[in-house]
Amino acid sequence: MAQNKQWIYARKPEGQVGPEHFELRENTIADPADGEVLVKTTLLSLDPASRAWMAGRTYRSQLEPGEVMAGWGLGEVVRSNAKSFQPGDLVSGDFGWQQYATLPARQLTKQDKRYKPEHLLGVLGITGLTAYFGLLDIGRPRAGETVLVSGAAGAVGTIAGQLAKLSGCRVVGSTGGRDKCKWLVEELGFDAAVDYREGDLIGQLRATCPKGVDVYFDNTGGDMLAAALSRMNLWGRVVCCGVVSQYNATAPSPGPAGVPGFLVTKRIRMEGFVVMDFYQRRAQAEAALSDLVNRGKLKAPVDIVEGFEKMPTALAGLFAGKNRGKLMVRV
Amino acid sequence: MAQNKQWIYARKPEGQVGPEHFELRENTIADPADGEVLVKTTLLSLDPASRAWMAGRTYRSQLEPGEVMAGWGLGEVVRSNAKSFQPGDLVSGDFGWQQYATLPARQLTKQDKRYKPEHLLGVLGITGLTAYFGLLDIGRPRAGETVLVSGAAGAVGTIAGQLAKLSGCRVVGSTGGRDKCKWLVEELGFDAAVDYREGDLIGQLRATCPKGVDVYFDNTGGDMLAAALSRMNLWGRVVCCGVVSQYNATAPSPGPAGVPGFLVTKRIRMEGFVVMDFYQRRAQAEAALSDLVNRGKLKAPVDIVEGFEKMPTALAGLFAGKNRGKLMVRV
Repeated sequence: MAQNKQWIYARKPEGQVGPEHFELRENTIADPADGEVLVKTTLLSLDPASRAWMAGRTYRSQLEPGEVMAGWGLGEVVRSNAKSFQPGDLVSGDFGWQQYATLPARQLTKQDKRYKPEHLLGVLGITGLTAYFGLLDIGRPRAGETVLVSGAAGAVGTIAGQLAKLSGCRVVGSTGGRDKCKWLVEELGFDAAVDYREGDLIGQLRATCPKGVDVYFDNTGGDMLAAALSRMNLWGRVVCCGVVSQYNATAPSPGPAGVPGFLVTKRIRMEGFVVMDFYQRRAQAEAALSDLVNRGKLKAPVDIVEGFEKMPTALAGLFAGKNRGKLMVRV
Repeated sequence: MAQNKQWIYARKPEGQVGPEHFELRENTIADPADGEVLVKTTLLSLDPASRAWMAGRTYRSQLEPGEVMAGWGLGEVVRSNAKSFQPGDLVSGDFGWQQYATLPARQLTKQDKRYKPEHLLGVLGITGLTAYFGLLDIGRPRAGETVLVSGAAGAVGTIAGQLAKLSGCRVVGSTGGRDKCKWLVEELGFDAAVDYREGDLIGQLRATCPKGVDVYFDNTGGDMLAAALSRMNLWGRVVCCGVVSQYNATAPSPGPAGVPGFLVTKRIRMEGFVVMDFYQRRAQAEAALSDLVNRGKLKAPVDIVEGFEKMPTALAGLFAGKNRGKLMVRV
């Protein structure tokens, strides 16, 4: 049987994450024990949260140097010692950054081969579910409201923004660079875009959100959060989805000055969530999202990097804002 | 007819508010026009929000120097040019800091003389309603949870803490000074108290909230908010009621570093509110609160300063933490 290549989380980054924090190792493939399944990885997801797992305890336990780097993937069952899986089954799970994963069956989810693999890891996977539940259950947009999305060109932002548009809202996305701003408007149907690299965030928000912001879907934290709070309307909602501006920071930034003053005077609700909390309702989201994709109402842009060797550089690229839509690596 | 003494908001404070920002003026009493009512003030409320109104736009329009200082009061109708009020009626409203107020009838609320006047301005007034709706509707405590209240010896904090205790929660209050800490526990039945003047807020919270904090009723913002966020449990709720630590600040403090990171990983909901938003449901709160007071289940401590001349020094004393419970001035 083939050797198993693994990317090891080798050392803790102090600032920007890069290839120097990982080491490629070759190993023999572990045989699946009773109740376990051997999976051959085909696609691996790259997410801002990957960086957070390296930094400290989050909603999952902290990664320790020496472990296989954690990461969500899609793959095919090669051998199974569990009744619930057969060779050839398409499955997803936290495989880690490796070509073959040997995992307990209960950690795997069987996937439907009718869908495109990249959608199973993107719009129909954690990314899409995060956008769906975050926007609709936490943000609760109403037709006619203005929804602002930060990290709008990213995996979650592209879906959240389009879902807001489908909900009848004016949608403004923030991202880095004029090309990505243009892409949001022309390709994904956002009403306007804010380029955070241009500065003057408050001025840009005033121009693009003339009626204020009712829902802010926050993937970044940082300056954009502070600017959004100053532009929020009464009874606004801030969906705290991620803090991508902070994951590479060596020291945590102070919080936005509008907290809690603006929250009181403007009756703002700021609420964090983790998509796993909605796991019981995933079928609802998958049905809605796949229907929208099938009918051509929702675009699910993906950015696929070819080659398992490129995992670390792809992760670094994610924080440099190189991707448009969901970033993944074909193993 | 008697002259009308008025405290004028004379100049905008840069830091601590004090007597130098007000001027006493004597004036003739304005006759009530059609639809207006002349009220003789008996009690005037002093609130942390008074300071905020001087600083900028909040949920009410900003006060401008030269105007009569704004403030909630209780009084008796002296003359009425409105059908809905008769001389002798007990009324409350935003009288301003003056001995007589001439106001449109629609800005007045008739009050029930069966209640103690100080309760009408305290536990059955804006203060009590703020605690009631903030704790129960925004905080939503459940029996067995831990509720932390900052500004716990103040008008809202004393009521919010006791309501949390009545809801079956472990209740911890923070305040300044050992005497007030002792008073919270021995007089009001709090389970423990944190003295913010002692420092090491995180250590004190660890000791007093061994199972973490589920609901934080925040009257202060600032360092206590940051410490509370670090001690919040999963799915914790932060009731953003006031920002008393900031009202006298010359420059706004940065927000707490845990925002939005902790909000995401711990799925925290932070929500601001203003009691006026619950005005339609005030009868529900008044009935519940008066019943609790009548049955001796809820203490409504009041701190009454005698003499209209003392309004400015009483307001300064509020920020120095001199009061226990609801601070008011007998005119």
